[in-house]
Amino acid sequence: MLFPTGHRGAATPTPVVPSTGRLTPLGLDQVRITGGPWARRQEVNATATLAHIEHWLEREGWLGNFDLAVSGGLAEGRRGREFSDSEVYKLLEAMAWELGRRPDDDLRTRFDAIVLRVSAAQEPDGYIGTRFGRPGQQPRYTDLEWGHELYCQGHLYQAAAARARTGKPDDLLVDVARRSADHVCATFGPDGNQGICGHSEVEVGLAELGRALGEPRYLAQAALFVERHGHGVLADIEFGRSYYQDVVPVRESEVLHGHAVRANYLAAGAVDVAVETGDAELLDAVAGQWARAQARRTYVTGGQGSHHQDEAFGDDWVLPPDRAYSETCASVGSVMVSWRLLLARGGAEYADAIERALTNVVATSPAHDGQSFFYANTLHQRVPAEHVADDVVSKRAEASLRAPWFEVSCCPPNVARTFASLAAYVATVDDGGVQLHQYAPAEIRAELPSGERVGLDVVTDYPADGRVEVRVVSAPAGDWTLTLRVPAWSASARVRVDLGDGVGGGGEGGVREVGPGLVEVAGPRAGGMVVLDLDSAPRFVVPDPHIDAVRGCVAVQRGPEVLCLESVDLEAVGVGVGGGVGVGRGVDDVVVDTSVPPWEVDGVVYVRAGLRGAGADVSAAAGAGAGVGAAAAAAADAGTGGGDPAADSGDSNGTGWPYTAADDVVPHPRPELHDVPLVAYHDWANRGPATMRVWLPTL
Amino acid sequence: MLFPTGHRGAATPTPVVPSTGRLTPLGLDQVRITGGPWARRQEVNATATLAHIEHWLEREGWLGNFDLAVSGGLAEGRRGREFSDSEVYKLLEAMAWELGRRPDDDLRTRFDAIVLRVSAAQEPDGYIGTRFGRPGQQPRYTDLEWGHELYCQGHLYQAAAARARTGKPDDLLVDVARRSADHVCATFGPDGNQGICGHSEVEVGLAELGRALGEPRYLAQAALFVERHGHGVLADIEFGRSYYQDVVPVRESEVLHGHAVRANYLAAGAVDVAVETGDAELLDAVAGQWARAQARRTYVTGGQGSHHQDEAFGDDWVLPPDRAYSETCASVGSVMVSWRLLLARGGAEYADAIERALTNVVATSPAHDGQSFFYANTLHQRVPAEHVADDVVSKRAEASLRAPWFEVSCCPPNVARTFASLAAYVATVDDGGVQLHQYAPAEIRAELPSGERVGLDVVTDYPADGRVEVRVVSAPAGDWTLTLRVPAWSASARVRVDLGDGVGGGGEGGVREVGPGLVEVAGPRAGGMVVLDLDSAPRFVVPDPHIDAVRGCVAVQRGPEVLCLESVDLEAVGVGVGGGVGVGRGVDDVVVDTSVPPWEVDGVVYVRAGLRGAGADVSAAAGAGAGVGAAAAAAADAGTGGGDPAADSGDSNGTGWPYTAADDVVPHPRPELHDVPLVAYHDWANRGPATMRVWLPTL
Repeated sequence: MLFPTGHRGAATPTPVVPSTGRLTPLGLDQVRITGGPWARRQEVNATATLAHIEHWLEREGWLGNFDLAVSGGLAEGRRGREFSDSEVYKLLEAMAWELGRRPDDDLRTRFDAIVLRVSAAQEPDGYIGTRFGRPGQQPRYTDLEWGHELYCQGHLYQAAAARARTGKPDDLLVDVARRSADHVCATFGPDGNQGICGHSEVEVGLAELGRALGEPRYLAQAALFVERHGHGVLADIEFGRSYYQDVVPVRESEVLHGHAVRANYLAAGAVDVAVETGDAELLDAVAGQWARAQARRTYVTGGQGSHHQDEAFGDDWVLPPDRAYSETCASVGSVMVSWRLLLARGGAEYADAIERALTNVVATSPAHDGQSFFYANTLHQRVPAEHVADDVVSKRAEASLRAPWFEVSCCPPNVARTFASLAAYVATVDDGGVQLHQYAPAEIRAELPSGERVGLDVVTDYPADGRVEVRVVSAPAGDWTLTLRVPAWSASARVRVDLGDGVGGGGEGGVREVGPGLVEVAGPRAGGMVVLDLDSAPRFVVPDPHIDAVRGCVAVQRGPEVLCLESVDLEAVGVGVGGGVGVGRGVDDVVVDTSVPPWEVDGVVYVRAGLRGAGADVSAAAGAGAGVGAAAAAAADAGTGGGDPAADSGDSNGTGWPYTAADDVVPHPRPELHDVPLVAYHDWANRGPATMRVWLPTL
Repeated sequence: MLFPTGHRGAATPTPVVPSTGRLTPLGLDQVRITGGPWARRQEVNATATLAHIEHWLEREGWLGNFDLAVSGGLAEGRRGREFSDSEVYKLLEAMAWELGRRPDDDLRTRFDAIVLRVSAAQEPDGYIGTRFGRPGQQPRYTDLEWGHELYCQGHLYQAAAARARTGKPDDLLVDVARRSADHVCATFGPDGNQGICGHSEVEVGLAELGRALGEPRYLAQAALFVERHGHGVLADIEFGRSYYQDVVPVRESEVLHGHAVRANYLAAGAVDVAVETGDAELLDAVAGQWARAQARRTYVTGGQGSHHQDEAFGDDWVLPPDRAYSETCASVGSVMVSWRLLLARGGAEYADAIERALTNVVATSPAHDGQSFFYANTLHQRVPAEHVADDVVSKRAEASLRAPWFEVSCCPPNVARTFASLAAYVATVDDGGVQLHQYAPAEIRAELPSGERVGLDVVTDYPADGRVEVRVVSAPAGDWTLTLRVPAWSASARVRVDLGDGVGGGGEGGVREVGPGLVEVAGPRAGGMVVLDLDSAPRFVVPDPHIDAVRGCVAVQRGPEVLCLESVDLEAVGVGVGGGVGVGRGVDDVVVDTSVPPWEVDGVVYVRAGLRGAGADVSAAAGAGAGVGAAAAAAADAGTGGGDPAADSGDSNGTGWPYTAADDVVPHPRPELHDVPLVAYHDWANRGPATMRVWLPTL
């Protein structure tokens, strides 16, 4: 059943506007982030990143491809990969949200100019794409496995939905998308081509466009595409059909699998379809896949995907920090899924996951200046990454510092569209009141489904400080409820309510201890205030023992932020030298003393740590040859952590056979300990090439 | 200076016959393995594997490609990958060694028939290859990065060297190889094409053929190819030029890097060149690269290469067991390098490495029937691998049980040529006497450089038993020395000498305690005997702490054999249920009690082990959704191994966020322990799909 009454898809200027669900999203016109790190990210995104992306799309000819479609010569002159069109559409989506957030004549002019060039490339039947179908090019839809034609058009639909919802339903971009979607429905409908796209995106794009334009046909087509997955529709490739989720039907799958971006985009589209069609089975299936992926296939940063080979999820528990792929786009996709499940079901775990992925992956990708990006987000950098000049296209997604652009440059515009629409994730409403999911200084001017209004000002230094003040500017005449998320990371939390009628709520002093999850408080009158105090003290975090790759290690978190040890800081306190390939000693030799909890001074978190055993310059030793002698030397210098052969074999100089009989292992002296500063993971690699690790071996 | 006097390259029927070096190899006519596991491997190789490979080469048309080269239609009808010719040459090399080992009319007839078909495809100018250069095909040498033309011809040269050395220097195959090599020298010489092959092999092939035929030009060309590496001769590809060792010159490189097979083949060719040209700098460089690769980039099995993406070495210490690639061919290559360094320098560490790689990787690849093979050799199988039917070509190197054949089928014939020439690695001679490097029941009838003869019979149940009897059948008139390798794995060792003159050597009882390395004893007269007693008791092995992926784990070894825990054995003793994707509990939940050393009963090694915490069926739980509740439940059931937050967070039911604040971790009960049998890693996966792990987490 599509679009029950109550559909307001075209009305709300925000991503994802379901016609049913537990919670109702607010528009970018109802929530404004007024300060703190997220406001800074939005500012850099608006003033630097959008122009940076536009510059590179122009420079690399990916925008020019649309002009060539008109002038001809696309067959010979086209530049970029099969999916380059999609980066243009993602930029348009980012610009549309930004324009919805804050009108800007110059930006609107640039937006319109790009839309004009895009629209000119559309063919009479509505098909749009610069890679297939023209004279001299491969025919349309002859390479569904790798062609990305539907993927690209799906991103066009998300961009058009953004434009339609931000007050421009009659925009040329919306018309282009509508004609493209009509073409796709005509081509891939029930009696048409029974294929799917090798990279999911058209599902969520069609669903969102259908909602935005009130067009059930688009949602029906999205549902068709979702259901076709898992029946071996596409060819069996080197990575297997699981790469594009074509082995198990979506409603039968138990966990997110295969290519991590494809998996999340498909799941997002499946939730949209499930919600709009009232398909509880499908919604439960995706929720279960989300849950198991969070429990067994997600890094402590919220990042997903541990395979470099196929950018895919590994098996359960396969989460190597030094081979973490954790693609930026996979976390953008995971936020898309978590947000949709939050709207459908409520539940603090979804907002926890959104905060985690935004704070530690999406925010890690761009440099502070918003003009270079991580594509993959490793949790352990063993060798200083190579610096990429600011005028060079990076060939490889990995093994480099942030790069200005990539041959496959999906991540920069994905970050841009997410930041431009960030305010959407802060709060929701339901019949009873307002729910606060993410904490940042903000102005919330919400309209409840009843039509009544609630005005809230959020004042906080979050995440640096755990205190969040919610000041009630205006409130409904009757009772209403304010729901606050107490993040799972907060060891303890207190809520104090000042009803604004001079009477403190919640008993003596009006203070109430609360546990993690959702906390409901009676909504105060205007002038009232609710204060949430979270425990943002730094703490050690230990992994589930199934995660073999980080056994015997701890991570350090402060609030939602995952911290890391960067070699520049280690050397600054006189610990460690060098850090080149295997030469010198640095983060790979660190052990942390967990008997001393991490502490904070002037906003900097410290741990007690030292370097294991004694070092040696390997470049010399390696030349000398390995073997029994060196192995014995290594073993002689080996430690057991107290006679337990389970403990590691202590430090070696890295020149002998590295596996030692437990009986030959002898203790080595306790290392000299230092106060070692950590840095927020999302801030790392802003000080030049360095080594880094999130998981710290323990003394 | 090429070929100093003393060159006997054509005379000795064995791989690798340097004209100089510390040790002199023996021919397959001088050493015969008479029993034990290696004799069985050779028997299965001769009676099953060679025919199996020939069958698949015929079936897949890779042999037929040579016929098409004559009949025409190669451009349209050619089958297989660019390098399929090389598998034919590797089979010919295996057949040649087998014929040298034991004459067989039927095998010789099949060998001759294949050589005839190969030779017919050779072009007038000596070029041979079925993929390039004919009408309708890409021109020769226009894709040095991926074309594998020189790689294929290099394997032809190794096959021809085998044939020439085993008494057939006038064989048609040798003539084909000579004409091909002349063509390569003419084409890629000092004034010719300055390129190299994207996959090293022609270097070692030319060097070996040059030695076998006494042709300095081939060695000179090999030297040119070696020196050209590292100067950016080839294109920068997605994996970077390090993939084919074209970033750093060989003599400047500090460690083996890039594609693990390419790296080892290039190193082998570089040693051959260094030895024949007296280039001590180059030899030192390769020895240093070998040493650091052994110390930092090699699995406990001797396997190399941890990247699936590019089949490459990872950075130092990146050795994840569950993502081990450890390609069979990489270990064949590492044996090639270790053997060459052993001949050049002596040194027990080289023979240790050969034993390790042969026992735990090369012998693991083929099933017991010699008709299916592992391409990659993981050290941790988390999900039962899919069974591959015996009539299906496996598309993927990983994620499968042993397969009869692969689209890239380099491994089966590489195993075959290694097993056929296995006796070569048992012993060497020098002016002073005989050196025993590998232990197996064997007859050694060696000729010393002096011309005198030494006859030894080796009697042993090695590796099941550590006792090795070396019975002297005939001895030189004067003094001579028997050198024995005491493997690094033997905690203790004793040597007893019976000089055969009724007087026991080495003092009272004639027993001498010896340490690991090389032990020299005065060679007994005929009728004398030397008995070496090694400690083959099973033992726990711990990793260097830099190897993050196996921190807090132990491996179990017995003699040279690495053992593993296979789920079938776990379930047989009533521990663990299921083992599907994340469902049920099995090897991923095992903890071993290291206070009880592993023990052996009737040849089976046991450890005390149990399952961590309490289990739960995840397929149900996952559907229920994760989040705070489940995470808290997981934490509540978590353990610290004694209050140390460094300890893991105990067992979880796998449905909640898997990272827990150290303060929230509480101990869980000590698991019930059982006597759990292990199996030799080289024997695993011969009982159907199963999960498996080499590294065992400790209690």
